[in-house]
Amino acid sequence: MTESILEKSEGRVSYHDSVEEMLKRIREDEMSNVFDRYASQEKIRCKFCLEGRSCQLCSNGPCRISDKGGQDKGVCGIGPDAMAMRKFLLQNIMGAGTYSHHAYEAFRTLKATAEGKTPFKIKEPEKLKWMCEKLGINTNQDTNQMAIQLADLLENQQRVGVEEPNLMVEAFAPKKRKQVWRDLNIYPSGTVHEEQNCVASCLTNVDGNHVSLAIKALRLGLATIYNSQIGLEMVQDILYGTPKPHEVEVDLGIMCPEHVNIVFNGHQPWIGAATIERARSADVQEKARAAGAKGLRVVGSIETGQELLQRFEVDDVFVGLMGNWLAIEPLMATGTVDVFAMEENCSPPALDMYAEKYQATLVSISTIIDIPGLQHKFPYDPSETETIVEKLIDLAIENFKKRKDKVKPLVPQKKMKAIAGFSTEAVLGALGNKLDPLVEVIAAGKIKGVVALANCSTLRNGPQDWNTVNLTKELIKRDILVVAGGCGNHALEVAGLCNMDAVNLAGSGLKEICTALKIPPVLSFGTCTDTGRISMLVTALADHLDVDIPQLPIAVTAPEWMEQKATIDGIFAIAYGAYTHLSPTPFVSGAPQLVKLLTEDIEGMTGGKVALGDDPVEVAQGIEAHIITKRKGLGLQ
Amino acid sequence: MTESILEKSEGRVSYHDSVEEMLKRIREDEMSNVFDRYASQEKIRCKFCLEGRSCQLCSNGPCRISDKGGQDKGVCGIGPDAMAMRKFLLQNIMGAGTYSHHAYEAFRTLKATAEGKTPFKIKEPEKLKWMCEKLGINTNQDTNQMAIQLADLLENQQRVGVEEPNLMVEAFAPKKRKQVWRDLNIYPSGTVHEEQNCVASCLTNVDGNHVSLAIKALRLGLATIYNSQIGLEMVQDILYGTPKPHEVEVDLGIMCPEHVNIVFNGHQPWIGAATIERARSADVQEKARAAGAKGLRVVGSIETGQELLQRFEVDDVFVGLMGNWLAIEPLMATGTVDVFAMEENCSPPALDMYAEKYQATLVSISTIIDIPGLQHKFPYDPSETETIVEKLIDLAIENFKKRKDKVKPLVPQKKMKAIAGFSTEAVLGALGNKLDPLVEVIAAGKIKGVVALANCSTLRNGPQDWNTVNLTKELIKRDILVVAGGCGNHALEVAGLCNMDAVNLAGSGLKEICTALKIPPVLSFGTCTDTGRISMLVTALADHLDVDIPQLPIAVTAPEWMEQKATIDGIFAIAYGAYTHLSPTPFVSGAPQLVKLLTEDIEGMTGGKVALGDDPVEVAQGIEAHIITKRKGLGLQ
Repeated sequence: MTESILEKSEGRVSYHDSVEEMLKRIREDEMSNVFDRYASQEKIRCKFCLEGRSCQLCSNGPCRISDKGGQDKGVCGIGPDAMAMRKFLLQNIMGAGTYSHHAYEAFRTLKATAEGKTPFKIKEPEKLKWMCEKLGINTNQDTNQMAIQLADLLENQQRVGVEEPNLMVEAFAPKKRKQVWRDLNIYPSGTVHEEQNCVASCLTNVDGNHVSLAIKALRLGLATIYNSQIGLEMVQDILYGTPKPHEVEVDLGIMCPEHVNIVFNGHQPWIGAATIERARSADVQEKARAAGAKGLRVVGSIETGQELLQRFEVDDVFVGLMGNWLAIEPLMATGTVDVFAMEENCSPPALDMYAEKYQATLVSISTIIDIPGLQHKFPYDPSETETIVEKLIDLAIENFKKRKDKVKPLVPQKKMKAIAGFSTEAVLGALGNKLDPLVEVIAAGKIKGVVALANCSTLRNGPQDWNTVNLTKELIKRDILVVAGGCGNHALEVAGLCNMDAVNLAGSGLKEICTALKIPPVLSFGTCTDTGRISMLVTALADHLDVDIPQLPIAVTAPEWMEQKATIDGIFAIAYGAYTHLSPTPFVSGAPQLVKLLTEDIEGMTGGKVALGDDPVEVAQGIEAHIITKRKGLGLQ
Repeated sequence: MTESILEKSEGRVSYHDSVEEMLKRIREDEMSNVFDRYASQEKIRCKFCLEGRSCQLCSNGPCRISDKGGQDKGVCGIGPDAMAMRKFLLQNIMGAGTYSHHAYEAFRTLKATAEGKTPFKIKEPEKLKWMCEKLGINTNQDTNQMAIQLADLLENQQRVGVEEPNLMVEAFAPKKRKQVWRDLNIYPSGTVHEEQNCVASCLTNVDGNHVSLAIKALRLGLATIYNSQIGLEMVQDILYGTPKPHEVEVDLGIMCPEHVNIVFNGHQPWIGAATIERARSADVQEKARAAGAKGLRVVGSIETGQELLQRFEVDDVFVGLMGNWLAIEPLMATGTVDVFAMEENCSPPALDMYAEKYQATLVSISTIIDIPGLQHKFPYDPSETETIVEKLIDLAIENFKKRKDKVKPLVPQKKMKAIAGFSTEAVLGALGNKLDPLVEVIAAGKIKGVVALANCSTLRNGPQDWNTVNLTKELIKRDILVVAGGCGNHALEVAGLCNMDAVNLAGSGLKEICTALKIPPVLSFGTCTDTGRISMLVTALADHLDVDIPQLPIAVTAPEWMEQKATIDGIFAIAYGAYTHLSPTPFVSGAPQLVKLLTEDIEGMTGGKVALGDDPVEVAQGIEAHIITKRKGLGLQ
């Protein structure tokens, strides 16, 4: 971090004043919290683990690799490069598996909807038809029949093996990439097939070669995006509508203690979407008022919030997005949450004490979420949607009755406007349904290039969102358009970079274009699950120009990756052919051959590579230099 | 360990003299080796990792849990119990995934065989028909058609979700267990479905509850055995014959330097089986002799060796089994290996220096195996079997030409007889095709009970196989019949406990029965993959007596578990309802609630539980006490 940025962060835990304000209460109440736990862990962090030189897989271990004699290998004989890559692959398997689980839920929700078993409708039959056409499904049939066939095909595409065609890759990958992937032996099968291979490869004494393990990770990354992520996002568009830009409100100031508040947390929109619709009925609001509340509200938390935000208007029932995952404990401490409903990560495991102290009800609405002190478990089943919604509403109203007397609320008076809901369709719409205007402004140098920012929020490289926000400011200042997804996107929304005021922070070229098109310099493209969606825009650009991805003046950054879905997104980006910045450095620094492979050698293979670095200014300079090189390659100034 | 057993192990690295002898050469040649690496790692082992109190998943970590203030949780808020159980579940996922990968290869091999694409035949059409009958496939049709339908059904059974019937569990689980599993919510879906749920549950901030994570592990364990393992073993029987007891030779003394030697290492028999058949042709032997060798031989290594051993007669072409995984480096150092062909674990990652020093050719014959210095990769595809076999034969002969001049062989003159090839069918055969005689000798107390030993070989609780062999001696001395699978089984074969001489080590009751039936006191039931096969015998006994598994005088032990397939076998055993001894202690000792759950509370749920302990005498006493309690429960003395 440069001196000035570092100085500003002194003593802070977060970029956001709302979080800082809540932390005061949390500390006064002597609550364990993520920020202080981080500080405690800093004292006992293991250097071996940080460098990827530790393994806990088998009973001959745990092992550590040191430079001392006889300690250069684990007991089995594995060296530092394979040890680190195997653990990194294992992380990526978790990311792939979680996306794949989300996709499974999406596809069965679409199917159940077409069968009339959910409260949802096929909101965008045109998009359904478009998907069916791309995948070879007969579109001369009933909408619901088409939807059932699409759901079955997409679930099957998660599982296709080596002998079956990968329809999703064929339909959605950049034209010039497919042969590259075939030549490198990373053209993927379905996500589940690749996961199965990768899981078995991570077993003790199976794959001890870091290059082979890395190749498997690349293949898994491609499968994850094409065979799980893009399908699931398109299905969510079909069910709830393709995102369109509109103004929303974010930050903890959206909370109102006098309302019954149901918070949806995770990544999957099903129950949240159904609850918004249901809560807009008079009888629900009446029931809440009968309990002494001003009404009942739905609050978006982290990625679920973003999934809802990009598709639903914000009003007095759906009030917006509270922030990203590091804001969850602060949110709970406002004393305004009645039901905290969880269906995927991040559902942090120490919320029980918050639920008790600030009187909230913790509910799992997924087949996989559990935490200590969970009060209710309603495993998701599409056909149970309406029942679950009613239960949540009842639980929330009951909770409100207790909470209003027992807890003194404290809500930071911080709210921010953001324009959420960009998508490939929306961008094309803004450009008059053609890519030429975008090409022209890039060619003219008004927009130097495009950076996709997709990641989480972490404390390892500074206060919450410090790196994300500062890097983004550095990029837009350099006339680089930022397209954002994930908890990092929420960071930018809360920090005010996704509204029209932020245009003033952009360089002159970008400012001119943003002003003309009435778009902010950071386009909120949704969640980490929208990595695939972001790639669709880049793919469209590459195919339109008839070039390959590595030729484009683009880059990817994950300036605060935290969990394992972020790493598989990063791995995808490398296979996709992108310069991919990751901070913090993954646990590979003790593996010299692996670091060389990921940061240098791999560029000769996929055209992509990993760039490391925790200083926003230096990272922005590196990205800018890369973009300028690619511009020159295309004959642009 | 008791004083006397400990004393005897002083200064040794292995129970086996052959390994000790080879280690001298290895050390003289200054080769890195698993035994000395173990000693080096002992000096820098991490206490946090050993106790399960470390996590390396996300970028806020790595974290450690200590008892100091503020360090009782990871940054995310996870406590020690969930941290340890999540890591343990992750290990088990790898085990499940690897079995599932083996099953995938088995099913596609059966299908390809039925389609005429492999050199294999349906060797046991009766067993095929029996499986089809059990699973509802029409048996009034062509054998190959039946086989194709069975292969498809079994692969599909690996993937079935919550809404589809689990035909394998219905066909093979003990009658009285199914409702227990339903009541506990551990009645499984297919292996892949459970794996997908488990993988997604291990992501940061998804499942932070150790009980919920343990429940998922139990379900995964059941899926692994029923939906992958039993199917794959039955398919291998259909293709290569159901194991039948016969005398074989084991230990490093089976190696002959004057022959061309192809070693098959791993768990999957396909290419090894085809090579044995092919090598029995005159032209192959002639080709080897033309290169100056006495002929060409196939050598079984670890579980692949056992898979072959239990189905093929040992002769001058297939010469037997060299030992278990810790004997691989010693085997290589004999200077007699021409091709070392690997298709699954354990294929240790530091063999390149051995291949160079002792002139062997390292070949991967799987889709997942890789190690540094691998010389050839022939990814397994059933229809490529014949091509791969020819390539291996050619490579081996070429290698022999180099090896014979460059390397001075050193083969320990140690060979042991063993009776391999027991199976449920073989046991029933020996008993006149009914279970009553077994019930009678158990009722009479001549056999007090039965212990299934299934595991690996580790150095963490003493020299190689020390614990396995000594515990087994203690058990048979107490009139407890041991049924063995896995690398532990090879340990017992090499140690001489699987031949008729071992009868003299048994207690008087067991000795009487073994002598009468002409069986050793340790029945070699195959590999770790035969855990399901062993359970079939126990299930038959329970159903025959119309009792539930926890009522039987049986136990399970893994006295030297090493990798993650052993742990999922152990987890299965707990769900199955068995007293399950595990040594070394898994990395859970720093998780008090989890230890209590696994060693105490779980007995009230499944009837099974984990028993810990590294002292063979004490462990045997604990098992005996358990068996006596269960005998009393059944009204037996």
